[in-house]
Amino acid sequence: MTDRAGTDDLDAAVVERVRASFARQGAMGTFGAELVAVTAGQVAIALPIEPRLSQQNGFLHAGVAVAVLDSACGYAALTLMPAESEVLSVEFKVNLLAPASGDRLVAEGEVVRAGRTLTVCRGDAYAEHEAERVHVATMLATMVRRRAG
Amino acid sequence: MTDRAGTDDLDAAVVERVRASFARQGAMGTFGAELVAVTAGQVAIALPIEPRLSQQNGFLHAGVAVAVLDSACGYAALTLMPAESEVLSVEFKVNLLAPASGDRLVAEGEVVRAGRTLTVCRGDAYAEHEAERVHVATMLATMVRRRAG
Amino acid sequence: MTDRAGTDDLDAAVVERVRASFARQGAMGTFGAELVAVTAGQVAIALPIEPRLSQQNGFLHAGVAVAVLDSACGYAALTLMPAESEVLSVEFKVNLLAPASGDRLVAEGEVVRAGRTLTVCRGDAYAEHEAERVHVATMLATMVRRRAG
Amino acid sequence: MTDRAGTDDLDAAVVERVRASFARQGAMGTFGAELVAVTAGQVAIALPIEPRLSQQNGFLHAGVAVAVLDSACGYAALTLMPAESEVLSVEFKVNLLAPASGDRLVAEGEVVRAGRTLTVCRGDAYAEHEAERVHVATMLATMVRRRAG
Repeated sequence: MTDRAGTDDLDAAVVERVRASFARQGAMGTFGAELVAVTAGQVAIALPIEPRLSQQNGFLHAGVAVAVLDSACGYAALTLMPAESEVLSVEFKVNLLAPASGDRLVAEGEVVRAGRTLTVCRGDAYAEHEAERVHVATMLATMVRRRAG
Repeated sequence: MTDRAGTDDLDAAVVERVRASFARQGAMGTFGAELVAVTAGQVAIALPIEPRLSQQNGFLHAGVAVAVLDSACGYAALTLMPAESEVLSVEFKVNLLAPASGDRLVAEGEVVRAGRTLTVCRGDAYAEHEAERVHVATMLATMVRRRAG
Repeated sequence: MTDRAGTDDLDAAVVERVRASFARQGAMGTFGAELVAVTAGQVAIALPIEPRLSQQNGFLHAGVAVAVLDSACGYAALTLMPAESEVLSVEFKVNLLAPASGDRLVAEGEVVRAGRTLTVCRGDAYAEHEAERVHVATMLATMVRRRAG
Repeated sequence: MTDRAGTDDLDAAVVERVRASFARQGAMGTFGAELVAVTAGQVAIALPIEPRLSQQNGFLHAGVAVAVLDSACGYAALTLMPAESEVLSVEFKVNLLAPASGDRLVAEGEVVRAGRTLTVCRGDAYAEHEAERVHVATMLATMVRRRAG
């Protein structure tokens, strides 16, 4: 996935649903994260890498990267669910592949298998610094559909 | 683990090492998290539950809870390592058991098995509201020792 | 958990349901595994450690230990489900703590949180050799209830 | 990956090392599993799906599929390690995507990131029935290098 409007193949209402939910996530606002792609079964979120989100050595805190990956996976799942759905994380696992430094983190979530109740997603996070891109984390997550409201 | 000084059985230098490293974690400061217990093989961190750290329904963002659990597990591992060590997260998995709301989250990390290079930890997070305590997440993590440097 | 009839607090029909399902697992028969405890929310399975189940160095193959842990967790979940239920593994994670050798492996599964659809379980496997017991693996698993039939 | 000799890009000594180690895995022999591809950073293992390896409903036991995935990931890691190495599983997580039935299971392991000590692998298992292929499981695993001998 690359930065793009990327919404051609998705009903505008679905994209709007993802954007509205994302806007209500206080944590994403506090982190300075933003949605950069929403397509069918795939969502990307970008985050500036800043000292206020660091671990002890100045790299991005792994937990912050994981929080963004979790949101990317959850919204990727939501794009394939019926209109009245909400999505919750059941569980996830992440391997941290390299320390994240540079300009920004891009977390990409995509659906591996969409079920009626449970959706399995994969997420990958990349640290970008100028023209360079380093694969810093990979996630495998289970999401559950709940009826909204 | 309960809130307490809880440092009787640990060399003061180890506690100081954990506290100094924690203080350098920009993300923990941004979250408003604080160390509430440091004992041999066990560390607890508390976090006020606030709207600025929420997911879309007003509960604490799972990723934020996970970030705090990750730090608790990492520092639990560090308490059992030689003096010149640093700790990095290799990977972790977390099951989200219930939405987190209330006054604060307490994340408790403890060492399951300490090896020369790799340490396995378990983490459990509880949402506290007045006298009530709800188990909201459980983690299984692998930490690696690096020589500080 | 220890070896015991251990069924006092469970309806005999539930125990019978677990035993009947276990008996249909061809893999458990091929491994020589047997149920050694079935109580509410907890199940233990034992397995003789034999060369025909080894990895390349003669220790028990991690995957075999994991298969038995998976069954122990699944049946622990089943003990708390309504009568017409079946249980399937959604996902699990396991940390391998030590190589398994000796006389037998005991895998203990227990329910961490039982939900209407999803149940979270923890599993721990021990290698027993004469009077000694070594913790060789720890699992965190998600099980889903399906209507039998 | 497809079934093939598939060894063009690998030193014959590495392939021989993988084959010799695989042959010593009693569990793989008991399962009837065989190596079907060994290339740099990728290994595939096939397993006939038989009642003696079933769970309670006649599908392949998830734990058996996971055992084979674990071996595929471990050997994929081994192909990229120095000659005097052994590989051990540190931990893995697997999502079970569909019940496995049909003629045979093919488990494919590949290296995501090879480090000096730790290697992260991804594994995917497919159930094959005549011309059909169903994705039944996906794994994320951490392997550790040990000096052989």
